[in-house]
Amino acid sequence: MRVFITGVDGYLGWALAQHLVKRGHTVAGNDIYLRREWVEEMGSVSAQPIYSMEERLAAFREVHGVKLDFRPVDLLDYAALCEFFQDFQPEAIVHLAEMPSAPYSMIDQQHAVFTHNNNVIGSLNVLWAMKEVCPDAHLVKLGTMGEYGTPNIDIPEGFFEIEYRGRKDTMPFPRQANSFYHLTKVHDSNNTMFACRTWGLRSTDIMQGVVFGTQIDAMGDDPRLRSRLDFDQCFGTAVNRFCCQAVIGHPLTLYGTGHMKRGFLPMRDSIQCLTITIENPPQKGEYRVFNQFEECYTIEELAQKVQEAARDVGLATEIQFYENPRNERGEHYYNPDRQNLINLGYQPTHDVVEEMRIMLKDLMKHHDRIMERREILVPDIRWDGSHRRSEIIDATPVK
Amino acid sequence: MRVFITGVDGYLGWALAQHLVKRGHTVAGNDIYLRREWVEEMGSVSAQPIYSMEERLAAFREVHGVKLDFRPVDLLDYAALCEFFQDFQPEAIVHLAEMPSAPYSMIDQQHAVFTHNNNVIGSLNVLWAMKEVCPDAHLVKLGTMGEYGTPNIDIPEGFFEIEYRGRKDTMPFPRQANSFYHLTKVHDSNNTMFACRTWGLRSTDIMQGVVFGTQIDAMGDDPRLRSRLDFDQCFGTAVNRFCCQAVIGHPLTLYGTGHMKRGFLPMRDSIQCLTITIENPPQKGEYRVFNQFEECYTIEELAQKVQEAARDVGLATEIQFYENPRNERGEHYYNPDRQNLINLGYQPTHDVVEEMRIMLKDLMKHHDRIMERREILVPDIRWDGSHRRSEIIDATPVK
Repeated sequence: MRVFITGVDGYLGWALAQHLVKRGHTVAGNDIYLRREWVEEMGSVSAQPIYSMEERLAAFREVHGVKLDFRPVDLLDYAALCEFFQDFQPEAIVHLAEMPSAPYSMIDQQHAVFTHNNNVIGSLNVLWAMKEVCPDAHLVKLGTMGEYGTPNIDIPEGFFEIEYRGRKDTMPFPRQANSFYHLTKVHDSNNTMFACRTWGLRSTDIMQGVVFGTQIDAMGDDPRLRSRLDFDQCFGTAVNRFCCQAVIGHPLTLYGTGHMKRGFLPMRDSIQCLTITIENPPQKGEYRVFNQFEECYTIEELAQKVQEAARDVGLATEIQFYENPRNERGEHYYNPDRQNLINLGYQPTHDVVEEMRIMLKDLMKHHDRIMERREILVPDIRWDGSHRRSEIIDATPVK
Repeated sequence: MRVFITGVDGYLGWALAQHLVKRGHTVAGNDIYLRREWVEEMGSVSAQPIYSMEERLAAFREVHGVKLDFRPVDLLDYAALCEFFQDFQPEAIVHLAEMPSAPYSMIDQQHAVFTHNNNVIGSLNVLWAMKEVCPDAHLVKLGTMGEYGTPNIDIPEGFFEIEYRGRKDTMPFPRQANSFYHLTKVHDSNNTMFACRTWGLRSTDIMQGVVFGTQIDAMGDDPRLRSRLDFDQCFGTAVNRFCCQAVIGHPLTLYGTGHMKRGFLPMRDSIQCLTITIENPPQKGEYRVFNQFEECYTIEELAQKVQEAARDVGLATEIQFYENPRNERGEHYYNPDRQNLINLGYQPTHDVVEEMRIMLKDLMKHHDRIMERREILVPDIRWDGSHRRSEIIDATPVK
C-alpha cells in the first residue's frame, strides 16, 4: 500500500515509516522539523540522539533497502501539499504532523494561536487536498484520548446511542478537552467527521493514549534509525520523562494527587495499532473512531512501575509529589472502551515493566545528555497562565 | 454598563449599539469592514443602502446624542485588541465579528481556511485579551443553532443530563455542524467553555437562530442609522432573501424539500435577547448556553408567510423549488428548547408576518438596487465543492 506520513521526522512518524516498509508498504512523508525547534525552544534536546534528515534518509535506504520519499513540505503550504499527494498518490495518509503538547499550547496567547494554526489549518488542508487529489485514500488521523476529558460515565469509541426525553439517537460522544492543544484535536475531529459525511472521504480517527518507549524492532541497533525521546515539560510524556529522571537519579516528578488515570501504550503498541488500522481501511464515506491504548493506569501506578523497572536495572529512584501545573481533576472515574482495535487483532503488550527496562537501558547510555539539562525537569508552565515553578507538596519522597 | 461590540459595523452590531445607548449603556466597538468586502466579492450589495463608518458615527452622535467609541481594529491584531480593551475597560463584550456564512466557508480551500482564521483565531484572541485585561467582563459569544445540527432527539440548551450504562453525568450536548462556518462556531464554543472553566472567565454562548428584518425602533427613520440587509446566496439569510425576491417579482427560491426546520427570529427579537443577556450576566467562571430564536419554522412555511405578507402589500409572489446546494436532511425531527431567555423576560414577537410587511415596505424603496443584481439570486456554491447553478426541480411554481 502507498502510505503517506505527515510529520515523518517525529517520534511516531519515524518509527512507523520503518515498520511499514518492513511490511512491504511504500512510504512517503513530509516534515519541516518543527518538533526539533520546539524542543530547543524548551531548552532541551532528545535524550536519544537523533540525526539530520539527510543522515536518517541515507540510513533508511541502507538498512531497509528502500527509499523513503521525503519532502520538507509545510502542511500550511496547500499547493505544495497537493503536488506531493498528486505525485505520490497515497492510498493511506497517517497524519502525525500536529503540535502534540498540552503545556506548549498553554504558554501564552502566541503559543495557543500557533497551535491552532499549525494543527487546525494544517489538518483542514489535508482534508481539502484529499478531496481534490485522492478522495479514495484513507485518512488515519491522530486524535487523543484527552479529547474526551474525564466524564463520570464510560467512554465509548467516538459515538454512543442515547435515550433522551423518550427519544433515541446515535450521537458523537461529547468532548471535554482540557488544554488548547487537546481542543485543536477536538476541532480536527469535528472537521474530519464533517468531511467524511459531506465529501465521502474515509477516515479512522485514533483517540490515542499517552505513548512511551525508545524503540521498536524495525529500528534494529543502528543509532541513526532510533526515534527521538523527549523529557522536557512540554514534549516529554509521563513515562518517558520518568525514565529519564530515573537514569540521572532525579526524583520522579508526580503532579498533584498522582491519581489522574489515563490510557497509556508502548510505542510498539502504537505502531502495531496504526498498522492494523492502515491495513483495514473503512468504507468510503465512513468516519470511525478507535480508542488506542494498552491499558489505563494512574500516573502514580506508572511512577511505581518505573521505580520497579529502575530497581531491576540497578537504579535507586524516589517519587516526589509536586504542585500540579494543570487544572484537572485529581480524583475521577475513568473507564474508556478500546474494543475496535482488539477486534481487528491488536495484541496489547501487557508487560509494561519489561518495556520500561528496555527504555532505561537505552537511556542509561545517554545519562550525560539528560544530566546536563536536569534543571528543566520541574514544570513552570501553568494552566492559569502564570509561569511559576511547581513546588514540592509532600516533603517525604516515596522510596 | 460599558459594552464592547466586535463587528459593530455589521448587521446586528450596528443595531445593537443603537439599542444599547438608548437604554443608557456606554458602547465601544471595532470593525474592519470585512462584511462589506465579502458581499462585494459575491457581486452584491446591501439592499438597504449603508453609509461609510464616518457618516454612521456622525449620525449616531447627532441622533443618539452620545459618541460610539470606534476603532478599525482587526481581532487578529492581538496587541491592538488588548489596547482597546485596556482603554475602554468593558464590562460586557458582545462578539459579533465572525464570518457568518455557511456557503462562503464552502467555496473552496482558501475560503474554508479564511473562515477558520477569522473566526477561531479571532475568538481565541478575544478570550486571551479578556484573561489578560478584563477577566471579570462577560463575554456574550454568538454561536448558532446550526452547531447542534438536526439530531433525532430534543435539543437542550448546551448541556444535558444523561444516563449511559447505568451511570449519570451532565455533559455538553453533542454538536453536529454542517458547514465549515458552523464548525468554526463549534470550535469557538469549545474554546470558550474551556476558558471559563480554566481561567474563571464568564460567558453566555448564544445559539442563535436565523435572523431577519430591516430595522429596530432605535434606528428611527434616519437612513444613515439603518442596518445593512443582504440578499446574495452567502450573506442573504432565508427570510431576508425571500423578501428581496418578492420585491422584484422573482420567485422565492426554496431549496430541496423546503421541509428543513430551523429556529428563526426577527432582528428586534435578537436585539431584545442580547440586551437581556448583557443585563443579566452569569457568575464568574460560569459558561451558560442560551438557545435564541422566536419560533421554529420550515423554510417552506416561511416562504408562504412572505408570500402572504407580500400579498398584503400588493405584491404577487411565486414559490419555486430549486436543487438544494447543501448536503442536509430534507426531512428530520427538530425540537430545541429556548426556555432560558424566556425565564429572563424575553417576549417573542409572535407576529412574524407583520415583521415581513415592515421589511417589504422598507425594501420596496430599494427595488432597483435588487433588480440590478437579480442574476445572483440562484445559488451556485455547492457542498460537494462544485460550482453549478441550482436547477429548478419542480416546474410548477406555487402561487
